[in-house]
Amino acid sequence: MSKNHTVIFTPSGRRGQFASGTKVLDAARSLGVDLDSVCGGRGICSKCQITPSFSDFPKHGLVSAPESLSEWNSVEARYDSIRGLPKGRRLGCQAMIEGDVVIDVPPESQVHKQVIRKRAEAREITIDPAIRLLFVEVEQPDMHKPSGDFERLQAALKAQWDVTATASLATLRGLQTTLRKGKWQVTCAYHVPSRQLLEIWPGYFEGPLYGLAVDLGSTTIAAHLCELASGEVLVSSGVMNPQIRFGEDLMSRVSYVMMNPGGDVEMTKAVRAAINSLIGEITVQAGIERDDIFELVLVANPIMHHLFLGLDPVELGQAPFALTVADAQSFAAREAGLELHREAQIYTLPCIAGHVGADAAAVALSEAPDRSEDLVLIVDVGTNAEILLGDKHGVLACSSPTGPAFEGAQISSGQRAAPGAIEHIRIGADKEPRFKLVGNEKWSDENGFEQAALATGITGICGSGIIEAIAEMRIRGIVDASGLIGSAEQTGSARCISDGRTNAYVIYAPKEGPKITVTNGDIRAIQLAKAALYAGARLLMDKRRVEKVDRVVLAGAFGAHISPKHAMVLGMIPDCPVEKVTSAGNAAGTGARIALLNLAARAEIESTVREIEKVETAIEPAFQEHFVSATNIPHATAPFAGLRKTTPLPDVNYNTKTGKRGRRRS
Amino acid sequence: MSKNHTVIFTPSGRRGQFASGTKVLDAARSLGVDLDSVCGGRGICSKCQITPSFSDFPKHGLVSAPESLSEWNSVEARYDSIRGLPKGRRLGCQAMIEGDVVIDVPPESQVHKQVIRKRAEAREITIDPAIRLLFVEVEQPDMHKPSGDFERLQAALKAQWDVTATASLATLRGLQTTLRKGKWQVTCAYHVPSRQLLEIWPGYFEGPLYGLAVDLGSTTIAAHLCELASGEVLVSSGVMNPQIRFGEDLMSRVSYVMMNPGGDVEMTKAVRAAINSLIGEITVQAGIERDDIFELVLVANPIMHHLFLGLDPVELGQAPFALTVADAQSFAAREAGLELHREAQIYTLPCIAGHVGADAAAVALSEAPDRSEDLVLIVDVGTNAEILLGDKHGVLACSSPTGPAFEGAQISSGQRAAPGAIEHIRIGADKEPRFKLVGNEKWSDENGFEQAALATGITGICGSGIIEAIAEMRIRGIVDASGLIGSAEQTGSARCISDGRTNAYVIYAPKEGPKITVTNGDIRAIQLAKAALYAGARLLMDKRRVEKVDRVVLAGAFGAHISPKHAMVLGMIPDCPVEKVTSAGNAAGTGARIALLNLAARAEIESTVREIEKVETAIEPAFQEHFVSATNIPHATAPFAGLRKTTPLPDVNYNTKTGKRGRRRS
Repeated sequence: MSKNHTVIFTPSGRRGQFASGTKVLDAARSLGVDLDSVCGGRGICSKCQITPSFSDFPKHGLVSAPESLSEWNSVEARYDSIRGLPKGRRLGCQAMIEGDVVIDVPPESQVHKQVIRKRAEAREITIDPAIRLLFVEVEQPDMHKPSGDFERLQAALKAQWDVTATASLATLRGLQTTLRKGKWQVTCAYHVPSRQLLEIWPGYFEGPLYGLAVDLGSTTIAAHLCELASGEVLVSSGVMNPQIRFGEDLMSRVSYVMMNPGGDVEMTKAVRAAINSLIGEITVQAGIERDDIFELVLVANPIMHHLFLGLDPVELGQAPFALTVADAQSFAAREAGLELHREAQIYTLPCIAGHVGADAAAVALSEAPDRSEDLVLIVDVGTNAEILLGDKHGVLACSSPTGPAFEGAQISSGQRAAPGAIEHIRIGADKEPRFKLVGNEKWSDENGFEQAALATGITGICGSGIIEAIAEMRIRGIVDASGLIGSAEQTGSARCISDGRTNAYVIYAPKEGPKITVTNGDIRAIQLAKAALYAGARLLMDKRRVEKVDRVVLAGAFGAHISPKHAMVLGMIPDCPVEKVTSAGNAAGTGARIALLNLAARAEIESTVREIEKVETAIEPAFQEHFVSATNIPHATAPFAGLRKTTPLPDVNYNTKTGKRGRRRS
Repeated sequence: MSKNHTVIFTPSGRRGQFASGTKVLDAARSLGVDLDSVCGGRGICSKCQITPSFSDFPKHGLVSAPESLSEWNSVEARYDSIRGLPKGRRLGCQAMIEGDVVIDVPPESQVHKQVIRKRAEAREITIDPAIRLLFVEVEQPDMHKPSGDFERLQAALKAQWDVTATASLATLRGLQTTLRKGKWQVTCAYHVPSRQLLEIWPGYFEGPLYGLAVDLGSTTIAAHLCELASGEVLVSSGVMNPQIRFGEDLMSRVSYVMMNPGGDVEMTKAVRAAINSLIGEITVQAGIERDDIFELVLVANPIMHHLFLGLDPVELGQAPFALTVADAQSFAAREAGLELHREAQIYTLPCIAGHVGADAAAVALSEAPDRSEDLVLIVDVGTNAEILLGDKHGVLACSSPTGPAFEGAQISSGQRAAPGAIEHIRIGADKEPRFKLVGNEKWSDENGFEQAALATGITGICGSGIIEAIAEMRIRGIVDASGLIGSAEQTGSARCISDGRTNAYVIYAPKEGPKITVTNGDIRAIQLAKAALYAGARLLMDKRRVEKVDRVVLAGAFGAHISPKHAMVLGMIPDCPVEKVTSAGNAAGTGARIALLNLAARAEIESTVREIEKVETAIEPAFQEHFVSATNIPHATAPFAGLRKTTPLPDVNYNTKTGKRGRRRS
């Protein structure tokens, strides 16, 4: 038969010549058009729905007419009567080409759907998960040609989907019953990287299957439950990392192992148990079973990464900071004791260096500095800060031990960002403060604030609150460049009170109980933390031989809450136009989600991390120099005042739930 | 440098031209000469010892002189002083080529050593196990080029051995300590098929590593512990299959599962526990640890195979006898709950068909009918008989449900082959019997027999005893062709006594306690069993369109004890010159051992089984016909007497311990 009909697919624009009687699905496949099909063209799954465009296409020199496709057939009629087929739609596996035709593939019929991310600058995520559902018809056993049921299933998968699959003994266990129950039609969950069948269902099964993206931090563990086929996040939740009881920061956990042989095993058990309990909570929230979760992608800093994998982190505590494994790891969830589907798989992103972990790799995947046209500095703020600097010509990475001060620890009135904590603060020209609490919409000088604050009390200051407090104190001259708080006499404010040999600033004095103050000790702790952060960034800038960056991205759960203006006043980050400072939210978690939903992203980040230039802060003399000179709070009022003069300050904040940027009511 | 020296290696005869200064080991490798090396040429392992032949070789046109090799160096001197180097030997990794030279590779320096099998007709086993020991030097960590210790180990394995290796999290756990303890030199146990590192030792480690070859039968489980590098069998041991309590034969075990849901799980647990306890016993006997065993190869009939793997065998009990898996399986021992080295691997041979299992495949591997010049019939006698017929032009296979009669079950005075059981019997012209017990060298009519028999008593008749008894009874006319025992009047022997409606023959009548007799019921059971065996063999002969075979091999633990003459008198096997009937001992166990010791044999048998033509006795009407006509005991005295007339009967037996064939004192 001659190939005498022109077929054009939209939106891809792919075209080819086909003979009469060719199925639309086959034509699409032969052209590489992204048209979904789970049942392999048997009219069961309806994933291959297409919309023919019947019109005159003079530009293409063809007329696409209703008679260009075969008539509506009994399979389509049956499907329409049972499940309903939208008007104008056909099943690509049933409709045959009979003439020149233009065929549109609607978004929901594309395999590789796009997830639109809410931040304008973020890359889209193409949905192409590591697990595919494959429907197959298996040949029945024949005594005269003996073979195993599994070998016939393998042959069917090869013939119908061109995949070579293996399966564990546990998966094989139910195979004979499943095949007979499904009348020799089954749907397999095929894990592409390991070529394993993770589960086999009788008949046609279309999911949903779920996956988890986990960001394992020193202080908190965050997880996002995603529907693999749509990319939708169903539940996001977190728990505290129970390893905190072994030490607040990374180095104290490594010390714990050095002092307590077997301490790594304890910590491995603790973190795995916490993840298991988090999974339990998430499945309850989502109304699904642990068995429904087939894959977990995890990111973490090198020490958390090693402890999760059951690897001793002691070498990471001393030069040359040797990782046991740096590469991405793929293994069965049961190897790590995680309670998911029996055959669930785990993927951990690669570590970049001994101090720059899989979390930094995930940030690189999410924020893609290696594709940036302008020079971007990405700072993932946490107990340990990961810092990336680069553009499409090259990326540098380091980590910096900021300590837990940014998270409210080591601060006299500090606390974690929970309801009742002061998260935003402004100090007027009269040196009087007003503030806003986590979980309370009103500012402290607004009507109804006290009423609303009754529910939680006013309990302390969280990380973003302390940054704003110190920056505002510097702006109003309460604090000098060296970080010293003036006395009541020096500042003319009764809120400055004597505190041992130095002074403190009272933000809130309740009728009973302790005052909420900023002490000189608090400022010292924040100075050290911000100096470490700044020094890391400057070190990378030295390596890159630049004096300024084009833009700054603040990442990390905490990073999302930092006011860019105040961060700059404080000297946490190098100078940069304030509108060029954006927040990426939990970029490490987003990177984990991208790797969960898009298999190609795994290969991409594995290759990217090899190209990243690693800088070890611990052995760079320049780091110490930058650190020492960065302890000052440099900006006084100058840049802030300067901005005020030319244009009203774009007082940017970020809604971490929507990720949308909005101007705050002043 | 020009390649101007001729080097000839013996015994391979390989030759090539090499430049001055080429190491002998490198020359050998480039020519593909089989010269061992574990340390990769570092003068540590001494596996590459060679013996230069200094002489005039006019046939090859060269003179091999002492100055053709570099001088004895300090590495060799040190090795010689510590461990001793045999006279005339050099280390191939140290000696360099300086002129024309002939170099002999002694057998112990060859990687692929040959194990000589004791039976003259058996193939040699080339030692090339699935696990290799690889010594490597690993690069130390460098902060300026961060990478994981494991990635540097992988790079070293690639560079020094050209292998790409992975490792489980459990193996990675101790890696950093091991590397530092070994001063960046380690030895890896590399499992070639799975590309996994199963263990890593600090420094140079030369084993020994062990493997187990297991023959899992319906009635007994036999295991052979082998040293992988030498092929030596250290311990052979066996236990009863505890599944017997669920049913004596295969079909009764399948029925048990049909009647008792979950019964397969019980049986899987029972057989795995039995193997674990057998492993424990074997390790104690050999003085090794479970951890020293790195691989286990298992063969079994399809139902035992499925139950071991944890697969439901119910489909194997009914047409079309569909296997869950037919192909060879490779998986971690822990998946089957076996307690060996943490990373130990299991390999199961492929099943040929629903009724012809991995045990038959192992027999095919051991006996290699597919390479036979003449037409060979191989009968593996057990509760289920596996039958192979073929030659290099093609092989047929079937199985036949003989039942447990051949193993002493269903026989009135029957018992298993244990001390005290009658295993051989002769009946004189006077119709008086004499016999021999298992574990007793003397015949019952020899002096001292009674004394020796006191230790065990005379407790019953085992399988080989009942075959000889009935055959001898037929020879002496005590039994007719239909299987009926004559009365005392008819036979003229008072040993023929009335037994209900038929008669019985008394072999042994103690002063107290029950007589040991052969009843008509016993003969009926053996008739059915031998008819099944014979019919299976005949069915294959029909398929092959032959009336006779060139030779017969009796296999199976029991097969080794059967007297070929009596088997033929009884009509168990088709007619064949009696000297052409040989015993292969436990050929299935040997096949398992071959697959354990030689990786290529696995690929070979996987390919061979695909070529074997499978015959399903259960659905062949011809099988029933043969069965019915084979219940008679045909030979009377004719063939036996005939042989007697021409030549003294070669009364062949087999010492199952040595495998050596010897003439018995008459």
